[in-house]
Amino acid sequence: MARAEQLNVLELLKQKSALVERELAHYLPAPAEAKSAELREYYEMMWDYPQRGGKRLRPAIIMLACEMFGGKTEDTLPTAVAMDLFQHWVLVHDDIEDQSDLRRGKPVLHKIYGIEKALNAGDGLTNYMWKALLANKPLVGATKAFRVLTEFAHQVEITAEGQAIELAWNMGNRWDMTEAEYLDMIAHKAVHYTTTTPLVLGAVLAGARARDLAVLRKVGLKSGYAFQITDDALNLYAEEAQYGKEIAGDIYEGKRTLILIHLLKHARKEDKARVLEIMAKPRAEKSEGEVREVLDLIKKYGSIEYAKKKALAYAEEALTLFRTKFTEVPGAQARDALANLIDYLATRDK
Amino acid sequence: MARAEQLNVLELLKQKSALVERELAHYLPAPAEAKSAELREYYEMMWDYPQRGGKRLRPAIIMLACEMFGGKTEDTLPTAVAMDLFQHWVLVHDDIEDQSDLRRGKPVLHKIYGIEKALNAGDGLTNYMWKALLANKPLVGATKAFRVLTEFAHQVEITAEGQAIELAWNMGNRWDMTEAEYLDMIAHKAVHYTTTTPLVLGAVLAGARARDLAVLRKVGLKSGYAFQITDDALNLYAEEAQYGKEIAGDIYEGKRTLILIHLLKHARKEDKARVLEIMAKPRAEKSEGEVREVLDLIKKYGSIEYAKKKALAYAEEALTLFRTKFTEVPGAQARDALANLIDYLATRDK
Repeated sequence: MARAEQLNVLELLKQKSALVERELAHYLPAPAEAKSAELREYYEMMWDYPQRGGKRLRPAIIMLACEMFGGKTEDTLPTAVAMDLFQHWVLVHDDIEDQSDLRRGKPVLHKIYGIEKALNAGDGLTNYMWKALLANKPLVGATKAFRVLTEFAHQVEITAEGQAIELAWNMGNRWDMTEAEYLDMIAHKAVHYTTTTPLVLGAVLAGARARDLAVLRKVGLKSGYAFQITDDALNLYAEEAQYGKEIAGDIYEGKRTLILIHLLKHARKEDKARVLEIMAKPRAEKSEGEVREVLDLIKKYGSIEYAKKKALAYAEEALTLFRTKFTEVPGAQARDALANLIDYLATRDK
Repeated sequence: MARAEQLNVLELLKQKSALVERELAHYLPAPAEAKSAELREYYEMMWDYPQRGGKRLRPAIIMLACEMFGGKTEDTLPTAVAMDLFQHWVLVHDDIEDQSDLRRGKPVLHKIYGIEKALNAGDGLTNYMWKALLANKPLVGATKAFRVLTEFAHQVEITAEGQAIELAWNMGNRWDMTEAEYLDMIAHKAVHYTTTTPLVLGAVLAGARARDLAVLRKVGLKSGYAFQITDDALNLYAEEAQYGKEIAGDIYEGKRTLILIHLLKHARKEDKARVLEIMAKPRAEKSEGEVREVLDLIKKYGSIEYAKKKALAYAEEALTLFRTKFTEVPGAQARDALANLIDYLATRDK
């Protein structure tokens, strides 16, 4: 994807994100209106991640998918906000579970306020997510509102299952998963709520046909793979200021990625043993030198290149399906923007 | 309340609880059907607290309130299950936040599986709660289903606010709260989901009138105070095997209770200073002797008697209102059972 087109995508995301930010204030309580100092701090905590910015990719996909099938952007706003709140809830809890240090360039919430309060603030966010979804009833009617609620409940189910699988791998120091097992894990943990559900939700709100939803689920799966694999690659070579997370944080965290699975599959016996030895150490015991060693082996065996190629192939598959199946839709402009966005998922540099 | 009547209440709770247990299997996934060892463990974790038993007071209140206004018990089952799952979610997360050791006589979930997995299992429970609530639509129609969803979202909001206030007190080592502030905290943290919302939900499912709901909210508040204050008293003198939690666990945890607030208000200067000194210590640094010291001072100043009197007075207030306002209802038997249950909240010995 050309640099100019990337900038177009980023500009579009910025516009959509502004809509979400404005709408958030209708649901999340304002710290200034808190009845006590304790509640003020709690409200501030719930506002913390939403105010750190981010691309708001998922709400944008909901809006574009709705527009593409002839729906109105306004009809997606509560759902887009709910998706944003879903992500912040998951990120606050994931940061505790993954013992992360940074989120968008700043300390994670539980490092600022303690695990206890951060955990509770995450739980608090869930209720505003559901409140936003209940606002769909007067906006788009009970039938669509129920379908959106059902997709959301399913999304919570699948995402938590993905997290359960990954946590079990991490805590059990398991490194022998196949590429297929890895793809199944990210399909649950990240893909479902990043691309699949947002595409489906937008289409549901526009009243799209069942067969269109079925295609979107396939497009979502492939483009979600492209997104997540690219994310894992960026973690290892992006610039920290651009990326907003700790560089090679995945190595420190001991995260299972396609890159590591490729490395372990292709590394010579002694290299593999060394990688496993380093990855098994808890974050605090890994030296910078050891992380550098793993990065060097990743380079030696071409694992980043492998992952990037895979990501591009998945994005291409998603795009071909998307372009072939949706030649005639009411919102051609939104469709083209969505195609660019899918392309961007695997070609972005942050 | 006479012992025989107490046994009647417990027998009734047992019957209602059996209905909930049977229904749970329709929503929570069975470990035997898990697609991997990782998911099997995750499913087992979600089943853990629901299988530890407990009185299932809240689902029983939903059922009785519905029957009292002429509704059918079957119509309450998904909502009763959702309420049960709500509580298990909250307990799993609260046990992490409060650094508890025991839950119903066994180690808390995160002591068995680690904080990371327990946190995620708690999140997973939320989705099955919402799935149960979505099952209301075909059962009782979209309008009632939406009203139930709205009450639930509100319940999550209020409960998390209560927890935020209590956590802020604990982590800020604040002990100067008034009795009114304390009552406001438990009104949020415990009362709302223990009595108020269950009463309202049952009535909503039966199609009760708005003015009945307004009375139930008042009854819920007063009977909820009675429940929580009694719970705090039982924590200090019940037998561990009966109570299922660590005795004086609240002292170890440094929990703010009406008993401690009474003690701090009435204790002589040096006694007060000693209590504050002991309560400020983290759990691991409190010796058995120090906890005993606090218990002795509680005895000396009659703080448990004060709390028990308060609890009885609140239960009496709730009962008087309940009996006066609901002289004619379709389900007189359920109404009388509910009155007994409210009485039981402040007179129970476990």
